[in-house]
Amino acid sequence: MAGLTRGHGDAPGPGCDPRAIVTSSSSTARWDSRPGTEQDAVNAGPVTEPSMWALDRAVALHPEGEGWSGQVPPHWTPNGAAHGGVLFALLVNGIQRIAPHPHPLSATAHYLRPTAAGPVQVTAHVARSGRAHATVEATLSQHDRPCVRALAVVGTLPAEPACTELRPPPLPAPDACTSIAPRTHDGFMPRDYPHDLDIRLDPQVGWLHGEPGGRAEIAGWGRLSDGRPQDLVSLALMADAFPPPIFDVVPTTYVPTLELTVHVRGIPSGQWVRGQFGSKAFNQPYVEEDGVLWDEHGRLVAMSRQLAVVNQRDPA
Amino acid sequence: MAGLTRGHGDAPGPGCDPRAIVTSSSSTARWDSRPGTEQDAVNAGPVTEPSMWALDRAVALHPEGEGWSGQVPPHWTPNGAAHGGVLFALLVNGIQRIAPHPHPLSATAHYLRPTAAGPVQVTAHVARSGRAHATVEATLSQHDRPCVRALAVVGTLPAEPACTELRPPPLPAPDACTSIAPRTHDGFMPRDYPHDLDIRLDPQVGWLHGEPGGRAEIAGWGRLSDGRPQDLVSLALMADAFPPPIFDVVPTTYVPTLELTVHVRGIPSGQWVRGQFGSKAFNQPYVEEDGVLWDEHGRLVAMSRQLAVVNQRDPA
Repeated sequence: MAGLTRGHGDAPGPGCDPRAIVTSSSSTARWDSRPGTEQDAVNAGPVTEPSMWALDRAVALHPEGEGWSGQVPPHWTPNGAAHGGVLFALLVNGIQRIAPHPHPLSATAHYLRPTAAGPVQVTAHVARSGRAHATVEATLSQHDRPCVRALAVVGTLPAEPACTELRPPPLPAPDACTSIAPRTHDGFMPRDYPHDLDIRLDPQVGWLHGEPGGRAEIAGWGRLSDGRPQDLVSLALMADAFPPPIFDVVPTTYVPTLELTVHVRGIPSGQWVRGQFGSKAFNQPYVEEDGVLWDEHGRLVAMSRQLAVVNQRDPA
Repeated sequence: MAGLTRGHGDAPGPGCDPRAIVTSSSSTARWDSRPGTEQDAVNAGPVTEPSMWALDRAVALHPEGEGWSGQVPPHWTPNGAAHGGVLFALLVNGIQRIAPHPHPLSATAHYLRPTAAGPVQVTAHVARSGRAHATVEATLSQHDRPCVRALAVVGTLPAEPACTELRPPPLPAPDACTSIAPRTHDGFMPRDYPHDLDIRLDPQVGWLHGEPGGRAEIAGWGRLSDGRPQDLVSLALMADAFPPPIFDVVPTTYVPTLELTVHVRGIPSGQWVRGQFGSKAFNQPYVEEDGVLWDEHGRLVAMSRQLAVVNQRDPA
């Protein structure tokens, strides 16, 4: 295990000495740090114009009852069940609306049952609000049944990049990586993989070429297909947007998430995130997936971990 | 990142090929797999005899109202606030009482406010119950204010050990490791570190000798001081029982947990667990701590991750 050591800083910038960091100025950016988005419009009152960005349309919330209503678009329901990442982004969107601090620091989602395309309800409430942190609970329901439960702690991320030894994986440029879109019909990827996502994997990943290499590790680039800038809502999606690393080890097409936790470690900027995901233990049918995400400037922005169920195909 | 590869099995036993694992028998052990414990007594009716084990007395729950009452012992409140691990164990104890499946697979606790010594209330309810999994929510409160909120998914752990490349760290025998008990008054460890815990660290950890080495990594042995056998309740405690790895990098004595998630990957047996903990990123004041726990037979039993706040002392 390579640990945090004194004297190393996150690129770019000089090395950091954690012992020298005693005070910190704080960013005042909201979770959604882009100017003039639909979220600002919702915060300011009723939405009158749909967002220009596909993801913001997919996770749009409209006040209704004690929470909000939303709509899961059909193309975000591969295998007939909604993509876990877009449901997580919907919940983060709801959490943001009531959070007394600007940034989610850690958010956990439990997936109780599949969510279908169509209307959903999101509720959120502050369980405890303190000076520096608050805890928020949120639920996404469909037909009055809870589908996803979330717990999050919100606070204020420091403006400085994290002091870390974690480094973005070396990768060819996105255009030299392998898009997973054409792979959606070869049996490895679910059909109808959401076309709003643009995921490009390191071409060294074996299963992309029909030659699983037996190593549960992937790295690649991810963005929204329409070039939407990353923020903390899209980061929630990106934490669950890469194919399961176990694809390279076990024949499976469906690895539903039981629980997903994301630690937000920085506010992303730019279109692309660079992701590295791996699994280290498989107690059949359970596998964990650890991920690290950097923005396109090499800043560490998130660490994710999920527990998922591997539905195996019979080996040939 | 060393990932899961085909052809390696968890020690002891032959190598495993995940592709060959298609069916799995399941253990029927309850979370508390020891015979004749207080928990069985509670499940069967009112407790008439206190447990012989200190931890079971500390996390004992008695039916009251819509949940249970408990008592946080004063010696479990270092710095005046209850140890996060023992609160987590209390919640797991409550979750067990109503869970429709025998094992917690992933459990997340959010710490909303400090808990003092004295009476607490625990409530738990099943948010969704399915054939293979159920989701349980639980709250630990004091004076009618929520202190810890938990979300857990329960299911049935496979009887086979996990297929994994993770290996227990090489360690001297417990008697040749360094107990942290004598360290509780030298400024590195909180005073009154619970004496029910017996933690022995790899003597190579620098801060133990007053010479922080600048690497946020620790490894060591842990058990309950009275030799209580490990089970899934004590495992919840053990996931938060080792000193923060950041002690070797940053001068601090108090690193309160915001959020702790434990993936249970196996049912422990024996008295000792072997733990390896590390931190890789510090965006001041936030640090993550990743842990892996093996039982004394070398079986992978848990992977933990928490987000904590580092309260720094002024550097000299």
